[in-house]
Amino acid sequence: MKIGLLNGPNLNLLGKREPSLYGNFTLDDVYNRLKIIAGKENEIIPFQSNVEGELIDKLQEVGFKYDGILLNAGGYTHTSVAIRDAIAAIKTPVIEIHISNIYAREEFRHQSMISGVCKGIIAGFGLDSYVLGLDSLLS
Amino acid sequence: MKIGLLNGPNLNLLGKREPSLYGNFTLDDVYNRLKIIAGKENEIIPFQSNVEGELIDKLQEVGFKYDGILLNAGGYTHTSVAIRDAIAAIKTPVIEIHISNIYAREEFRHQSMISGVCKGIIAGFGLDSYVLGLDSLLS
Amino acid sequence: MKIGLLNGPNLNLLGKREPSLYGNFTLDDVYNRLKIIAGKENEIIPFQSNVEGELIDKLQEVGFKYDGILLNAGGYTHTSVAIRDAIAAIKTPVIEIHISNIYAREEFRHQSMISGVCKGIIAGFGLDSYVLGLDSLLS
Amino acid sequence: MKIGLLNGPNLNLLGKREPSLYGNFTLDDVYNRLKIIAGKENEIIPFQSNVEGELIDKLQEVGFKYDGILLNAGGYTHTSVAIRDAIAAIKTPVIEIHISNIYAREEFRHQSMISGVCKGIIAGFGLDSYVLGLDSLLS
Amino acid sequence: MKIGLLNGPNLNLLGKREPSLYGNFTLDDVYNRLKIIAGKENEIIPFQSNVEGELIDKLQEVGFKYDGILLNAGGYTHTSVAIRDAIAAIKTPVIEIHISNIYAREEFRHQSMISGVCKGIIAGFGLDSYVLGLDSLLS
Amino acid sequence: MKIGLLNGPNLNLLGKREPSLYGNFTLDDVYNRLKIIAGKENEIIPFQSNVEGELIDKLQEVGFKYDGILLNAGGYTHTSVAIRDAIAAIKTPVIEIHISNIYAREEFRHQSMISGVCKGIIAGFGLDSYVLGLDSLLS
Amino acid sequence: MKIGLLNGPNLNLLGKREPSLYGNFTLDDVYNRLKIIAGKENEIIPFQSNVEGELIDKLQEVGFKYDGILLNAGGYTHTSVAIRDAIAAIKTPVIEIHISNIYAREEFRHQSMISGVCKGIIAGFGLDSYVLGLDSLLS
Amino acid sequence: MKIGLLNGPNLNLLGKREPSLYGNFTLDDVYNRLKIIAGKENEIIPFQSNVEGELIDKLQEVGFKYDGILLNAGGYTHTSVAIRDAIAAIKTPVIEIHISNIYAREEFRHQSMISGVCKGIIAGFGLDSYVLGLDSLLS
Amino acid sequence: MKIGLLNGPNLNLLGKREPSLYGNFTLDDVYNRLKIIAGKENEIIPFQSNVEGELIDKLQEVGFKYDGILLNAGGYTHTSVAIRDAIAAIKTPVIEIHISNIYAREEFRHQSMISGVCKGIIAGFGLDSYVLGLDSLLS
Amino acid sequence: MKIGLLNGPNLNLLGKREPSLYGNFTLDDVYNRLKIIAGKENEIIPFQSNVEGELIDKLQEVGFKYDGILLNAGGYTHTSVAIRDAIAAIKTPVIEIHISNIYAREEFRHQSMISGVCKGIIAGFGLDSYVLGLDSLLS
Amino acid sequence: MKIGLLNGPNLNLLGKREPSLYGNFTLDDVYNRLKIIAGKENEIIPFQSNVEGELIDKLQEVGFKYDGILLNAGGYTHTSVAIRDAIAAIKTPVIEIHISNIYAREEFRHQSMISGVCKGIIAGFGLDSYVLGLDSLLS
Amino acid sequence: MKIGLLNGPNLNLLGKREPSLYGNFTLDDVYNRLKIIAGKENEIIPFQSNVEGELIDKLQEVGFKYDGILLNAGGYTHTSVAIRDAIAAIKTPVIEIHISNIYAREEFRHQSMISGVCKGIIAGFGLDSYVLGLDSLLS
Repeated sequence: MKIGLLNGPNLNLLGKREPSLYGNFTLDDVYNRLKIIAGKENEIIPFQSNVEGELIDKLQEVGFKYDGILLNAGGYTHTSVAIRDAIAAIKTPVIEIHISNIYAREEFRHQSMISGVCKGIIAGFGLDSYVLGLDSLLS
Repeated sequence: MKIGLLNGPNLNLLGKREPSLYGNFTLDDVYNRLKIIAGKENEIIPFQSNVEGELIDKLQEVGFKYDGILLNAGGYTHTSVAIRDAIAAIKTPVIEIHISNIYAREEFRHQSMISGVCKGIIAGFGLDSYVLGLDSLLS
Repeated sequence: MKIGLLNGPNLNLLGKREPSLYGNFTLDDVYNRLKIIAGKENEIIPFQSNVEGELIDKLQEVGFKYDGILLNAGGYTHTSVAIRDAIAAIKTPVIEIHISNIYAREEFRHQSMISGVCKGIIAGFGLDSYVLGLDSLLS
Repeated sequence: MKIGLLNGPNLNLLGKREPSLYGNFTLDDVYNRLKIIAGKENEIIPFQSNVEGELIDKLQEVGFKYDGILLNAGGYTHTSVAIRDAIAAIKTPVIEIHISNIYAREEFRHQSMISGVCKGIIAGFGLDSYVLGLDSLLS
Repeated sequence: MKIGLLNGPNLNLLGKREPSLYGNFTLDDVYNRLKIIAGKENEIIPFQSNVEGELIDKLQEVGFKYDGILLNAGGYTHTSVAIRDAIAAIKTPVIEIHISNIYAREEFRHQSMISGVCKGIIAGFGLDSYVLGLDSLLS
Repeated sequence: MKIGLLNGPNLNLLGKREPSLYGNFTLDDVYNRLKIIAGKENEIIPFQSNVEGELIDKLQEVGFKYDGILLNAGGYTHTSVAIRDAIAAIKTPVIEIHISNIYAREEFRHQSMISGVCKGIIAGFGLDSYVLGLDSLLS
Repeated sequence: MKIGLLNGPNLNLLGKREPSLYGNFTLDDVYNRLKIIAGKENEIIPFQSNVEGELIDKLQEVGFKYDGILLNAGGYTHTSVAIRDAIAAIKTPVIEIHISNIYAREEFRHQSMISGVCKGIIAGFGLDSYVLGLDSLLS
Repeated sequence: MKIGLLNGPNLNLLGKREPSLYGNFTLDDVYNRLKIIAGKENEIIPFQSNVEGELIDKLQEVGFKYDGILLNAGGYTHTSVAIRDAIAAIKTPVIEIHISNIYAREEFRHQSMISGVCKGIIAGFGLDSYVLGLDSLLS
Repeated sequence: MKIGLLNGPNLNLLGKREPSLYGNFTLDDVYNRLKIIAGKENEIIPFQSNVEGELIDKLQEVGFKYDGILLNAGGYTHTSVAIRDAIAAIKTPVIEIHISNIYAREEFRHQSMISGVCKGIIAGFGLDSYVLGLDSLLS
Repeated sequence: MKIGLLNGPNLNLLGKREPSLYGNFTLDDVYNRLKIIAGKENEIIPFQSNVEGELIDKLQEVGFKYDGILLNAGGYTHTSVAIRDAIAAIKTPVIEIHISNIYAREEFRHQSMISGVCKGIIAGFGLDSYVLGLDSLLS
Repeated sequence: MKIGLLNGPNLNLLGKREPSLYGNFTLDDVYNRLKIIAGKENEIIPFQSNVEGELIDKLQEVGFKYDGILLNAGGYTHTSVAIRDAIAAIKTPVIEIHISNIYAREEFRHQSMISGVCKGIIAGFGLDSYVLGLDSLLS
Repeated sequence: MKIGLLNGPNLNLLGKREPSLYGNFTLDDVYNRLKIIAGKENEIIPFQSNVEGELIDKLQEVGFKYDGILLNAGGYTHTSVAIRDAIAAIKTPVIEIHISNIYAREEFRHQSMISGVCKGIIAGFGLDSYVLGLDSLLS
């Protein structure tokens, strides 16, 4: 299996950014942890961008080739019709991932524009949110 | 570890109830699947009720003794301040579970009264929503 | 035909409760009136509970066996996603009944959580609301 | 008894119009069915118009003479303060009738401007909605 | 092809009415312009009324015979469930036309009750809105 | 001066209709009272219709000839964009009249679709609302 | 008759304040005009304050002695529950007056907190709004 | 006097539950404190349930026999039309009690479904909220 | 203890003002009743104003010296951010008092701008609302 | 004439993306069709990007040089104040194009942030939406 | 230049009031700081009141004579149409000042009734908010 | 001090773009003006992009190195959760700048997604908004 690990805006700051909310791990830690779990027979391909359109480019590029996508769309989660449309347009199933429990934060984070077109949603488990997302694709 | 598997209203009908939404598995299938994953060193204790107050009774009873709770509150998810208060009152971490992707359904299912006080949320993976919830507690 | 006559919270007080709104008849009067209309070839099975979950239990129990259900869900009409889910989960058609004209009362009574999954709605005819509901099932 | 059978916009298309929603019967079928039930001692006087003001004219004309009115106001149900005012102004009791379950359709059909001034509401029973309405007046 | 040119309330005042918004052309100018474009092989049949119900009558009359309808419903655009229902009830495709850019005007003009059941929407091009609508039907 | 006295839906029932709200006077009483005040040098031309479009027809007809219009649009006050557009389209100033205090009644009567394009608003003075409106035009 | 002429905040600036909205007349002009109309047998007692509480003081003081009150509450119209309560508490009928057509201005001016407890409302006639208010009290 | 002390969901956890919000006292402490104040001539009868319907059962049972009811409906305060209906249906006056200041907490706790049918409301005084409620009944 | 008894707009009219809502007692009756309860060792200092800013002046003046404040802010309860800020700025605890049950009245009275910064809220007990407020401070 | 053909996010997937909604044609098909209609005397310059800011860059670049712009802003239509500002900032008229009838889809697609500053809007005609847009510019 | 330094409710408590929000400086400190910056050629005239109407009086008094006004309207910022009207009525430009970042506080502080008629807004810089406001007037 | 001057979408058009709203100065004029004020001991580093993600990139890049950031986020101000997250994630204080008074423009510009995480807000002073922002950082 080929699995895309797509991260949106500000997730490149993991480890530096509000650690009480997002933990102390970095995006590399996420990648390394997933690689171990994926084992040799599966491939994890990471991508991060702060640009909404580049996330759409990547979703389009991998969305007809990969077997699954873990997507943490960061702040675009709550505002992007365009990313929603990209997910709806592609074939590969997308899992929506959030490190923090977005429903326990500000009101404007309670609504996700993309949940409706994702296969499933995992939120609130810190680094483990990604791990559980990978589990769901591998099983 | 002792882990509570709490299911709310209408989840006793799994297997009979709108299979295109909820799948063909029964609540027993969920329990058996989790028991295998939990192995001998962990215990899964199932409970189901259609009565909001009995779910609160159970949360109170196990919420100071168990190590984790998987809670699928069914229709009460969207309306129950009382279950929210019970979760906030207890010590044991609670994982919110949904079989279907509630965000892809009717508007009134997009809001959860309990997400804000749960440790994490998993939705949309069918029977695997429970499995992933268990994974998160075991890890 | 077997027909369930399900009544929700506070309907056991009929006759004692705000007679200008709900009339002077009791729940027994409703049952007796329906029994006469149903005749010998049909059976009316009454049930009343103030507990939301017990109404769900009963809907599940009879919802695969009876030929029709007359449901006056009382105050739960306006708040219960769980009863809605129960009605959607069962096979037996459910008729939503209200004694008073809920649309002529407080704003919060104008919305019904269950109308969308019931076969039909009858409101405002006093005891006759039940009679018309029975008529609709018998015809 | 003299009973008005008033139908609003597009109900003259019954039989031709979206039969999955409105059934295959025509407005004449409704009239004939009611006439049989009414018997010789009661008179059914039908009227249909697509013009809001003509429905008001008719309500005013018959609303001090007839013994009851069955009103399916069609699309004006959801928008017409003027029809509401006409119903409130007259003496004859008005029963609000809907063929389809308006509460199971688009959001804007969930609100009725006229329910609050009608004696009772019957919705969702197809042609039988009219029959039940007639029953309620005859009893 | 037979094409209906239906205009709603106040459009008979074109040329006299707020020319900065609606231009200096009259409804006859619209008709003449369309007739030229339609040529001999197509027929344009104009109709205007200020009465909501007469627009519905006309939609019903031509909606099973004509090949296309250009509908500028004027102020009824924003309020009429009944016209929406008429459009949904008929077979002929309806194109929603607006002379001015309704989305650049008062808030209450941003919502159209009929767009959802029309084939397409054209707004803001002055007299050319009708021309483009005709183009769409002819092609 | 020529002054139009336009009355909308259900105002033909004045004297019969909810006298506690609308008083005991009839529409003829209004006309006669205004005629006396207007004297010989001014003309009052009355018109009443329950049909929204006929009110628009009349506004258009007199709106380029008369010197003033007293308009009680009845229930259409709260819903009619089309009447608003007619008032905006004509030259004659229009005074909005209400017999009852619409702001002391149901919530949906607090909003007027036409106030924004009328010259002035007078509400709550019973028959005197018309008299004051006439005063404002004569002065 | 003794009639109070109460004016609220910023109405002391009449003549200096946005003349396109409020005209060129001063508050003295209003008073003098009303005095002439009132004649000798009636008394007009003027009062102006920018302080909400002083308007309430005055309403209380005159509200059990005068025969009528003309109240232009200015900006407090849209926000003051306290002035509303004062009007409801007193015996003298209060007429709500506005110089400009508040319904043709910003959204927040469309709602009046006091209309519901006033006898009548007059808005949009410039200085004549006061004159018409006086007429209504004298008649 | 016989006075019911009714407590709803999660109030059995008092003393264990978020003490910074709810204090360190238990429900027994409340009962004992009230018993002392009530003295010998009055009786305090306590009841607690997490089940909405059992609270309704109890309200019905005691609501025609007791002289007063102190009701802390916990989380059901904000959602239960059914409890509201029970309070409206009975004769005994009900005092709404809250330990914490619900208006200083989350938005969804600012609205009470039951205040409108209770005699009075006391909130924010900790254990003293019950004491003040008892005072109000005894005086 | 020194205790401020602060009353806002229109409360000086107690006894004259809508007695069915506010009772027959005067503000002096309130003061005298409280003085008796307070006894010699405690002092009640009364203050009433219809001016929002004078209530703020007084809150500031006594809010660092007195031991408690009973505040019935009248109509300002529902609109005043400035009084809220004053309460938050001072040291003395403030008890919010209402004579009537504000939650059983108009919608706009259901929201209090000040509850969130008061220590506790008491509403609906008539004169006893003040007595209970004093009890809470004395205990 | 030089005419820009600007397409936003996911429109590069035309032909692959939900063909029941967007048809089977590709963006190249659109371009080729328009080139034929434009003929030799007019130039069509296509541009597509998934990046909001690149669409703004392009609007700025061509917005002072070209004679017209056809803009299908895709998902950014509903969310982008920045694209709206760009359209308002440039000189070239912009036509808003949609392939599908956005008003017949999800609620969040009914609002366009850019319609208010576009010259005209065309939606729902499939590939022909572009053709009609070009017609409007050429005429 | 003559510059008014107007401060609204509770700003006289600066230094005593919630220092974590409003800092430790007093209103005198503000005045002294501004006087130094203003130098000899400019005059700063301070005014503070807790009374909405007195702020309006002062705005009217200085609003045709001074060269600029720094206005911190405190809690009236969010509720006062009357102050808004005063600012719109006068000639002198008004700068809206806030010590704290009102947009980072409670929801009801995010809306300002007066921003729309002020020349500019400065918020969040503590004492420096006033200094920056003065800078803007002096430059 | 190193100070970032970050400008978002369409601000590169300053001088060309709607000068009545945004003035005649260019972005270079802003930079040159600030450089003079900053003097030699401080550095102004300008950056402009129309791409939301590039603004985030830059905020991240300079947000741990610079001493202050002046950010005019243009149209992204009102929609970007992602820029808000970037500001919250970095250490350098950010000042929100607007040339025009956004609160005096369209409703959708009244809300800023970023104000809540900025140190201060300055709006409405034209080019001086930047100057005042720089003043606030230098002092």
